[in-house]
Amino acid sequence: MTPKAVPAIEALASTTPFIAPEALARRAGLSSLLRLGANESPLGPSPAAVEAMQGAVSGSWMYSEPESTDLRAALARYHGIAPENVSVGAGIDDLLALAVRAYLGDGTVALGYGTYPTFLYHVAGYGGRAVTVPYENGRIPLDALAALAREHQTPMVYLANPDNPSGSYASPAELARFMEALPDPTLLILDEAYIDFADDFAPQVTIDPRVIRMRTFSKIYGMAGARIAYALAAPEVVSTFQKIRQHFGINRLAQIGALAALGDRAFFEQVRRETARGREAYRELGERLGCATIPSSTNFVCFDIGTRTRAEAMVEELLARGVFIRKPGLPPLDRYVRVTVAAPQDHPRFAATFAQALAAIDAKEDVLV
Amino acid sequence: MTPKAVPAIEALASTTPFIAPEALARRAGLSSLLRLGANESPLGPSPAAVEAMQGAVSGSWMYSEPESTDLRAALARYHGIAPENVSVGAGIDDLLALAVRAYLGDGTVALGYGTYPTFLYHVAGYGGRAVTVPYENGRIPLDALAALAREHQTPMVYLANPDNPSGSYASPAELARFMEALPDPTLLILDEAYIDFADDFAPQVTIDPRVIRMRTFSKIYGMAGARIAYALAAPEVVSTFQKIRQHFGINRLAQIGALAALGDRAFFEQVRRETARGREAYRELGERLGCATIPSSTNFVCFDIGTRTRAEAMVEELLARGVFIRKPGLPPLDRYVRVTVAAPQDHPRFAATFAQALAAIDAKEDVLV
Repeated sequence: MTPKAVPAIEALASTTPFIAPEALARRAGLSSLLRLGANESPLGPSPAAVEAMQGAVSGSWMYSEPESTDLRAALARYHGIAPENVSVGAGIDDLLALAVRAYLGDGTVALGYGTYPTFLYHVAGYGGRAVTVPYENGRIPLDALAALAREHQTPMVYLANPDNPSGSYASPAELARFMEALPDPTLLILDEAYIDFADDFAPQVTIDPRVIRMRTFSKIYGMAGARIAYALAAPEVVSTFQKIRQHFGINRLAQIGALAALGDRAFFEQVRRETARGREAYRELGERLGCATIPSSTNFVCFDIGTRTRAEAMVEELLARGVFIRKPGLPPLDRYVRVTVAAPQDHPRFAATFAQALAAIDAKEDVLV
Repeated sequence: MTPKAVPAIEALASTTPFIAPEALARRAGLSSLLRLGANESPLGPSPAAVEAMQGAVSGSWMYSEPESTDLRAALARYHGIAPENVSVGAGIDDLLALAVRAYLGDGTVALGYGTYPTFLYHVAGYGGRAVTVPYENGRIPLDALAALAREHQTPMVYLANPDNPSGSYASPAELARFMEALPDPTLLILDEAYIDFADDFAPQVTIDPRVIRMRTFSKIYGMAGARIAYALAAPEVVSTFQKIRQHFGINRLAQIGALAALGDRAFFEQVRRETARGREAYRELGERLGCATIPSSTNFVCFDIGTRTRAEAMVEELLARGVFIRKPGLPPLDRYVRVTVAAPQDHPRFAATFAQALAAIDAKEDVLV
């Protein structure tokens, strides 16, 4: 007799949060795509990180150091906190799973409807439930989210700041007001994957025992394929993660590359500048083509395509032209497409292709009318 | 108020399965150690894998392909099965966690007392329990293990074959008899991390719906730091893992390196040969020094040091001399030390240091008597 999974797992839906660009390319019959759909940084890792990883490849026979001692010390110095406030994981997805498993279980979390889907994947996976507030004007309404958390006395609240997929940003003052309005106790999972792109970004953080901040080397540091991220939290949280994390789960090259990347502040600032320029170029492109954009503090921009159907068609038209993007799946943001800021040399190709794709869906609609 | 973890997680002990060699080196005041404690392969990754990873470092800004399509296809060809029978994970530890979470939950697993501790780390972490049989003559007695599983009607049985830490091996015929004696249904987690070193190893496998085989690139392929392994199982198991795994959790260089490593059969055979020679040299060393060894089908050998106290002292004496090894923690194997087969050029240093360390503990005992 074939063994069965435990009922809670058996009952889970067979869904994949995201279809890979490689699968989309195969579907489109193309060998590769301009990758603007996963908010990867086309500017790549810092040359210092590349050099460090190159030098370490032949040492891949060794496990990584399980406590990430050097990296945690460097991160602590950078953020002005203690190494005991830092837990390193194999990407924010790994850390989100640890947080949900340790602090939510079968409880209820409050979050924005349509925000980062992988978070809810873990909530469902560990038997939790969710209550949600809808986006308003391209933003998660923090007052409404806090009120919802109070109403349900949720033990956990999830907020991506800057938000994904909208790109919108709550300032430190807005965030402080939000924290004041949350129920007590509650644990805020503050997913700051894109915080390095915010205009007022500063490395210093203060540790609030009610918050787990998540940071990553996947975005501004251009190391998405390396799978390395970290949580900033109270020592009790770090100790709790220590009870359930995969101690030898970090790729050794990722660990070495992250340390080198962290040390290259000039490259970090260059990526920030070029990304800000690219966002502005996207805003102008949208304006020129009649697609409003949501102000973004990230390395991606949402373009308003008018309706869900048109936005879905836009994704397909771009894919057919060799450009991979994604779109928010749920209303009211489902009329937008979300586009990663392209490398400067790829911007003209993207802009031209975007205009062509938009013209193509307009032309099809004219035929239908 | 500081949020608390859910009770099941709060109740877990704060243990780390293994202390890292880097931490041991710091304790000993040494900058590096001869690493013979984690069964890493000092022969390193295949030159083909090194070259492939070198070439891919600058592409680390891209996420890995989440379905590992190319690697799964290559693994399926290699093992004579279908890609639907293959699930790729970030190391066997990752796959063990998925298996325990999906198929054990709060159930009871039967296993050998003192076998691979990280498996029990996951069992405890997901709320499961364990029943155990002790080693007999350096082996896990399969008849007794099957009888225990029948007695408790356990939904899961764990067996590492070849075993860690003993290094002993059950032949395909012994394993088939064991399978016959298991309760029905039960799921056998067959941890084959070291199977590539067995004398009668052959790549072909048959899929049994009652078994999840776990294989890794960490051992014979010399890529422990890369974190990549795979499960061979019925399509239903692969689908179940798909519901809970980290879809973007594989390091991209690991994925690329594993594919290249799999293609380099000459290097694989060379590592097999050199490891077999090293095992024989260890056996002879033990014989010369009066330490019986357990016949091993892996890349490590257990030496009988006489008592638990002497074996613990041996670990410390070797550490003080710059050599990192480990020892089984639980009786009856706790009188052994476990030593990874060294690279040929390091063997003389290890043999001399081992003899010195043994003489040192003998001398201390003489003083005590």
